[in-house]
Amino acid sequence: MDSWVDGQPADALSLKDRGLAYGDGLFETIAVHGGQPVLLDRHLTRLAEGCSRLAIAADIERVRSELLAYAAAMGEGVLKLILTRGDGLRGYAPDPAAQGRRILQGSPPATYPAVHGEQGVRLFPCVTRLSNQPLLAGLKHLNRLEQVLARAEWRDGEHAEGLMLDQAGRVIEGVFSNLFLVRDGVLITPDLKRCGVAGVMRAEILFQAESLAIPTQITDISLEQLQWADEVFMCNSVYGVWPVRAYAALSWPVGPLTRKLQTIARALLDA
Amino acid sequence: MDSWVDGQPADALSLKDRGLAYGDGLFETIAVHGGQPVLLDRHLTRLAEGCSRLAIAADIERVRSELLAYAAAMGEGVLKLILTRGDGLRGYAPDPAAQGRRILQGSPPATYPAVHGEQGVRLFPCVTRLSNQPLLAGLKHLNRLEQVLARAEWRDGEHAEGLMLDQAGRVIEGVFSNLFLVRDGVLITPDLKRCGVAGVMRAEILFQAESLAIPTQITDISLEQLQWADEVFMCNSVYGVWPVRAYAALSWPVGPLTRKLQTIARALLDA
Repeated sequence: MDSWVDGQPADALSLKDRGLAYGDGLFETIAVHGGQPVLLDRHLTRLAEGCSRLAIAADIERVRSELLAYAAAMGEGVLKLILTRGDGLRGYAPDPAAQGRRILQGSPPATYPAVHGEQGVRLFPCVTRLSNQPLLAGLKHLNRLEQVLARAEWRDGEHAEGLMLDQAGRVIEGVFSNLFLVRDGVLITPDLKRCGVAGVMRAEILFQAESLAIPTQITDISLEQLQWADEVFMCNSVYGVWPVRAYAALSWPVGPLTRKLQTIARALLDA
Repeated sequence: MDSWVDGQPADALSLKDRGLAYGDGLFETIAVHGGQPVLLDRHLTRLAEGCSRLAIAADIERVRSELLAYAAAMGEGVLKLILTRGDGLRGYAPDPAAQGRRILQGSPPATYPAVHGEQGVRLFPCVTRLSNQPLLAGLKHLNRLEQVLARAEWRDGEHAEGLMLDQAGRVIEGVFSNLFLVRDGVLITPDLKRCGVAGVMRAEILFQAESLAIPTQITDISLEQLQWADEVFMCNSVYGVWPVRAYAALSWPVGPLTRKLQTIARALLDA
């Protein structure tokens, strides 16, 4: 399916776009099932938060209606939205009157092996560490060189994801997923106030757990704490939940809370 | 003058370019005078270093010949080169066989007020701090949201540049310039091993100072050390050298070493 730029079919972008020049923008990767964008409200909420923090003018309701129309036309697959600050002139200073530019790209459904969800995955220990930048933490912005470097660290099929630490050695997230662990019945996920991407599926899982009266905690997590976890899993808004079986010398069983939340995530993606 | 993409006139870019998706690339901003790119070797050296560290395949001699041809055609102005990893598919994993994409854009000569160089500038105290990422430090890569946020902090004409600190409060650089100070006859500039862009004019000034037997030092600099500086100046490869007159409550005279290096930089830009 053709991509859209500002609502029109297009296959090319202005060379003046600040998304190219500075990574000056945001993106969302959205599962589409039965012509519907999954977890659309959560994606739009994060996008709006990003626009607010980067001071990018964007009409979120217009983005919503374009996403709905594009998803209806594509049916099944993955929809990527890139929202940039639009064209710029020379220099970093953003034009306060700039209108955001909306880029929609569709691709076929993700083709991760089913075994990742069924039997769990092994995480690659990434050497690339996340830098602390509270002003950008949590946002899914276009400055993603750290993820590119981390993802380039392994090419084997043995590792489905990589684990990224911050500069202080805290456990933060996967390269394209968020991390949860379970310890004594409590569902715990890293605090993303310094770095990391606050994933849409992460937010949904926290919400679902609270609905089930499962205690949750958002806090700093050390590698040592990971060692004492009863269960570990990764999540994102395309594949749902993958149990984590191993990381370096550590290993975990696939646990019951992981399976419960995996089933809920699957149901959302297949709804 | 038309932009070029991979040596051909073009005004648009593939929507699949990883420069847009992830800021997965590098850039150089090059002064052009009399049809010649100024400090071309230094720009290409930094570019090659960036390609090596990001593992982007690029034929640097081909980049050189394109820059020379483009500069000859434009005559006077500023030439921006963006080198991206080229098109990507979904996901962060870089294709090891990807060929870099070369984007050249020309713009008219910079129009900074002459008074900046003549009388010196006042630096805005940026609240946005640089994050520490040794794997990217020194490179002029396309992940520049920190500079966008910092440059958005002021819009008055009173401040020509802003000063950026790192998360630990060290003095690092301007938003689009490097910083030098002079203390007891020694020319000192911040160490950029954790963050910052290793500017081409910074390298040239260090080289020129050494040729003049002026002692130089690359080291961590605190705000307190800035306070005791005899002279402070900023530099980049487009405007050359601007003396710094003031930053917050601090002020400095325009000193003799600043003037000497400014004259040398001006001669290079006007050669």
